Amino acid sequence: MLKEVLLGVLTGAVALTIGILLGHFAIDKGSSVPDWVRDASRDVDESIIEKFLAELDTNQLRENLRELTKVPHMATTPGDEATVDFMLKRWQDPNTGLDSAWRENYKVYLSFPNKTSPNKVSVGKTGYLFTAREREKVYKPDQEDPEVVQPYAAYSPAGNVKGKLVYANQGKMSDYELLNRTLDLTGTIAITRYGGEGRSKKFRSLTRSSWYTSFIALNAINAAKFGIVGVLVYTEPYDMNDGLVSESETYPHSWYLPPSGVERGSYNIDFGDLLTPYLAAKDDTYRIPKEDITGIPPIPAQPIGFEDAERLICELDGDDAPNEWQGSLNCTYKLGGPGFKSTSTFNNSNVHLDIYNTERLEYSANVMGIIRGSVEPDRYVIYGNHRDSWVHGAIDPSSGTAVMLEITRVLGKMVKEGKWRPRRSIIFGSWGAEEFGLIGSAEYTEEYFSKLSERTVAYINVDISVFANATLRASASPAAQSVIFTASKQVKAPGTTTTVYENWKQYSNRTSPNYGIIPNVGFLTGAGSDYAAFMHYLGITSMDISYFYDRSKTRARIYPAYHTAYDTFDYASTYIDPGFTSHQAVARTAGNVLLRLADSLLLPFNCSDYAESLDQYLGQAVTAFEEKLAAKGISMEPLKKAVQLFRDTAAKLDRLIRDSDLAKETPLKVRQMNDQLMLLDRAFLDPLAFPEQYGFRHVIWASRSSSVPTFPGLADAVEKAESTGLKEDWDQAHKHISIVTQAIAGAAHTLDDVI
Amino acid sequence: MLKEVLLGVLTGAVALTIGILLGHFAIDKGSSVPDWVRDASRDVDESIIEKFLAELDTNQLRENLRELTKVPHMATTPGDEATVDFMLKRWQDPNTGLDSAWRENYKVYLSFPNKTSPNKVSVGKTGYLFTAREREKVYKPDQEDPEVVQPYAAYSPAGNVKGKLVYANQGKMSDYELLNRTLDLTGTIAITRYGGEGRSKKFRSLTRSSWYTSFIALNAINAAKFGIVGVLVYTEPYDMNDGLVSESETYPHSWYLPPSGVERGSYNIDFGDLLTPYLAAKDDTYRIPKEDITGIPPIPAQPIGFEDAERLICELDGDDAPNEWQGSLNCTYKLGGPGFKSTSTFNNSNVHLDIYNTERLEYSANVMGIIRGSVEPDRYVIYGNHRDSWVHGAIDPSSGTAVMLEITRVLGKMVKEGKWRPRRSIIFGSWGAEEFGLIGSAEYTEEYFSKLSERTVAYINVDISVFANATLRASASPAAQSVIFTASKQVKAPGTTTTVYENWKQYSNRTSPNYGIIPNVGFLTGAGSDYAAFMHYLGITSMDISYFYDRSKTRARIYPAYHTAYDTFDYASTYIDPGFTSHQAVARTAGNVLLRLADSLLLPFNCSDYAESLDQYLGQAVTAFEEKLAAKGISMEPLKKAVQLFRDTAAKLDRLIRDSDLAKETPLKVRQMNDQLMLLDRAFLDPLAFPEQYGFRHVIWASRSSSVPTFPGLADAVEKAESTGLKEDWDQAHKHISIVTQAIAGAAHTLDDVI
Repeated sequence: MLKEVLLGVLTGAVALTIGILLGHFAIDKGSSVPDWVRDASRDVDESIIEKFLAELDTNQLRENLRELTKVPHMATTPGDEATVDFMLKRWQDPNTGLDSAWRENYKVYLSFPNKTSPNKVSVGKTGYLFTAREREKVYKPDQEDPEVVQPYAAYSPAGNVKGKLVYANQGKMSDYELLNRTLDLTGTIAITRYGGEGRSKKFRSLTRSSWYTSFIALNAINAAKFGIVGVLVYTEPYDMNDGLVSESETYPHSWYLPPSGVERGSYNIDFGDLLTPYLAAKDDTYRIPKEDITGIPPIPAQPIGFEDAERLICELDGDDAPNEWQGSLNCTYKLGGPGFKSTSTFNNSNVHLDIYNTERLEYSANVMGIIRGSVEPDRYVIYGNHRDSWVHGAIDPSSGTAVMLEITRVLGKMVKEGKWRPRRSIIFGSWGAEEFGLIGSAEYTEEYFSKLSERTVAYINVDISVFANATLRASASPAAQSVIFTASKQVKAPGTTTTVYENWKQYSNRTSPNYGIIPNVGFLTGAGSDYAAFMHYLGITSMDISYFYDRSKTRARIYPAYHTAYDTFDYASTYIDPGFTSHQAVARTAGNVLLRLADSLLLPFNCSDYAESLDQYLGQAVTAFEEKLAAKGISMEPLKKAVQLFRDTAAKLDRLIRDSDLAKETPLKVRQMNDQLMLLDRAFLDPLAFPEQYGFRHVIWASRSSSVPTFPGLADAVEKAESTGLKEDWDQAHKHISIVTQAIAGAAHTLDDVI
Repeated sequence: MLKEVLLGVLTGAVALTIGILLGHFAIDKGSSVPDWVRDASRDVDESIIEKFLAELDTNQLRENLRELTKVPHMATTPGDEATVDFMLKRWQDPNTGLDSAWRENYKVYLSFPNKTSPNKVSVGKTGYLFTAREREKVYKPDQEDPEVVQPYAAYSPAGNVKGKLVYANQGKMSDYELLNRTLDLTGTIAITRYGGEGRSKKFRSLTRSSWYTSFIALNAINAAKFGIVGVLVYTEPYDMNDGLVSESETYPHSWYLPPSGVERGSYNIDFGDLLTPYLAAKDDTYRIPKEDITGIPPIPAQPIGFEDAERLICELDGDDAPNEWQGSLNCTYKLGGPGFKSTSTFNNSNVHLDIYNTERLEYSANVMGIIRGSVEPDRYVIYGNHRDSWVHGAIDPSSGTAVMLEITRVLGKMVKEGKWRPRRSIIFGSWGAEEFGLIGSAEYTEEYFSKLSERTVAYINVDISVFANATLRASASPAAQSVIFTASKQVKAPGTTTTVYENWKQYSNRTSPNYGIIPNVGFLTGAGSDYAAFMHYLGITSMDISYFYDRSKTRARIYPAYHTAYDTFDYASTYIDPGFTSHQAVARTAGNVLLRLADSLLLPFNCSDYAESLDQYLGQAVTAFEEKLAAKGISMEPLKKAVQLFRDTAAKLDRLIRDSDLAKETPLKVRQMNDQLMLLDRAFLDPLAFPEQYGFRHVIWASRSSSVPTFPGLADAVEKAESTGLKEDWDQAHKHISIVTQAIAGAAHTLDDVI
């Protein structure tokens, strides 16, 4: 029996062991390990990113652009409506669309030329001596479209004015002051060239910080102060065409602007609907009286091409203009008698401006689309671009919209196939009426202010996606620098054997105290595109991404067809990005950033990079202002201490993140750190810091007129105090030190231990 | 062998089963079920609440009060420093203290009388005819303390003025206008009585909404408009003593104010440090020039007791004052000749005001203490009260501080013994310099604006904890009504056989559309205590809790020793709450609210209760304004729709909460709903809605001067438009409809599905 007993025991022991193993490993403990435990700690999936990058297709990008640019689609026109329908069709596609998509209308104040009474620029009574072109010359069928809007300056008032002509360079205060020394400007008409400070909205890296058309609205505002009654603005070929002026050297023979090309623009300083500041422009919203609008030209203004400008400038009498006022037109630029020289057929004649612009309330649509987040649906990554153009807008903005549509196609497909859903929600915005002053995006942020402020992780703006084929270009809150770098390292630069990151570093770099030589990410200090309301009004970490020039190859201040009837599919596909590989590189880089922001367990923001930027600003401020302030008894020590505190708490949060095993942490701990990172830019908001400047609440990145690249409130206040010497103006400088000190220290407190 | 085999199989089967069971149940799966899964879903523990309620002790409350009121402790005096040390000692106690405690200093602008040159009110040259008392009469040793500050009006300017006396009732604009019809007020001195609108800071339920001393600062501001050169303010026994005036009927024989008692006060309209609006008052913070301070008296003002007031008023010449201007002093009140009657020894004499107040920058301390949260340390429940008094301040504010200290003793003990730690962090604040204008709490919210805005769940204010023994009294954001009800149902009302809730409902109730008859929770529309900066500036769901009168038993506008040298431990323990049972009831109710806010899995806020309040405001606005607005072409429909949307989304969130099994949900889902509830009040902030009113950003609960209990911006705008009839003022009414509509719709969007 011993053997039997042994056998039984053995059998039993084996069975027991098997049973224990089965019980432990094979039978799920059911509800004791909820599914969400795994979901909550899931990080970004690199294989999804690879798949996404691979699927972004140049042919799709080309066809998107072709479709978007079939007709002119200025805000609220039938062409714009057609793009609304197209976006909705794409985003509601059952196989490649988003979870849902819809339109949102705002009733906004726009300015248009009068179709039956076109604006007129002429010399001599009834213009028999000379009349400027009312349309740009036709080289391709696109220019023949009856919907091509006559070149005009939006928000320039209607009016019939005349006067002797003077040449006023870029229409800066200093330009008019110089003229005023020798000439009586009262009753004159000024001809000026586009350019100068803040000269073009898409060209931030080489311009000082200001609203994209503020220069040009300021031009007319400045002019009126000298008694000037009307302003002409032309595109100087020296600035835009590398000096080329002949038809044979310009589009359709090259990317340069033809002599008849005219740059349209919105001549207003404030962004958002002008009648409903801080309020979303709904049907019954209170609207300020039109007379109360500030920041638009008080006198008529009109843009013209350089062909017409040459006729006027080269006939001018008077002294030679200064060297730096000269340009590429075929004569020596003179200041004007005022008026034309005695040998000219225009002698003694006035220039007449007959402007018939009318303002109207129109419904402008944003098209919105979403992909719901799986784990944190209440966290939003917003990706947007405007949809409206001045004419066909192939580059501005359709190159960006083509990229957005290709990104949504690939993501939508993965969602519809059940292969992927982001951790956080993604919101896509196709904004309306940007060209008139970032209106659609501004109204959206006003209407959903609280919801967006509480929940938005980041805003990615891709407006003009491809200016040219040389290199990536990005401007961003410093918090986002690292994720842009990560993304750009994973994308091949078209036409090279290297990455977008390495290529970028060759074209534009700086030496970082933390990292050494890195690509230069610009600051979002202006209001050049729809990121403005997100960055400046809501304090959301924002970025603006595009492909850009080799600055050593051209002096053009922007791609030359900008805002003209030549910005067409033909132009874009012939001269800007024939293979659509730069479009693809931008789609890959911006889309990669989007995926990382949406899917990372921990938000890929870096607060020590922010500290580095604050340090840089502090250094500039100390160098430029400390001595002057000390002479007035104003100390910069509190500001230095605040920056130091920010640096220290940023390093502390960095360490906490580094020392955490996030995948094993409670999701609430990760959320806590994510909230600290998400809300970092929000902590710099102060709605009372710049009470006069619409929408600018971020005390670090607000618009600045001083040339010192540092804290804007401080820089502008010191500049003013120096010029007036008044005690009360030095007081304002002190006040701005306190404001920025409190903002930086307040932000530092949010990075510190949470309690 | 069959048997053996069978035996073996059987043995094996049994062993296998045992093994499976062992493996499944007995062996922990280790890291696969992290501890935090249970922690994250833990709800409030009712047994902890019971234990907490049981331990709150009347003897401890009494001894706290005795210690706190040993000496006068006006802000920044040695007595105040002693209370700082006392708070720190208690909060740093190793057995009953908090996790940590510290002090935070601000350098603030205060106003004091001059010890060597006391303020003087007199009649006749050198005052030989009459001089008002410089100190209150001594009945107990407390009044003999050399640190008892001379009665004065803080922020009244120094100055030596004289003039004929007039009696101006409460110093309202309408009072001065009435006088001005028959008298030339230029160069006169006005004697006025405390009271009128916004007459006392602690007495909100019967007053209209305004800053606690705005009436009294406005009094002097109004007076100056009529050429009046100085203002006296006295306490009318009709208003405060139920008409009693004799020493034998007043303290120390009853709770009523003795004839020599003088109510001190801060005569400023704005809260927070007056020199550093919106900026924390640190050493180097920019300070506005003193001349730029607004909202303080332009002419000298001084408070006096009714004993002295009687000497002056009863000698006045002139017409009888209107019936409603009469009081309980022993004569018919006349308006003044101006000046005294011919039969008076004062005949032809001027009243002289010699005021020597000086303003100084002093360091004022907040004492801060924290208990770290275990699960969501980045969520704060803040509980606070001010520490400074005018004299001994037994009721104001030490009755509240005694309650706070008893709450922290019981909680601290549980924490130190390892028996409890809250889910969320708790912050205790003992604010400095409240009596001068809520300064300590306001500076704190300015310094930590972002951190507090992002993370604070609620603010609980218990200032004067016991006005009297009759009933609970609470004012709160509607979101907090339900948790106050829950807490008050668990506490026995002292001296009754019922609960605090039921007792309250008997004294003060209303009929709710949702619940029927419920206790009446007031709105926090004013700035009566330190909740102001939290509710109005930060938009944090706030509440103010105390025990209160039976209004049918007294007309006293507040407890009669308010702000006098008689507000002592003797007074409080003899006449206000001898058994300290009302203190205990408040500690239990407010402490219970605190624990529920800190420990509940889901925040105990109710957004449908908020909808009910908005509905109530809407109803009032429609009744009062719709017709008038329609006559001007202004529609209220958008506002109606916004309130409807809020109601609908609130109901939706309620359903979502009801239908969720929170304990089984992912912590991120619960956090999402908690964030929606936490941030609800924040969504009503608009820093540009009331640009002239410091600190008021909450568009629903901001201060209002109109008598219509509804949306303050709209009510005040309509009132102004009606009085001026100007188009631009009706425009402002329209604008305020748009502002409040956008705020309510914006808040509704935050309650809706998160994406």
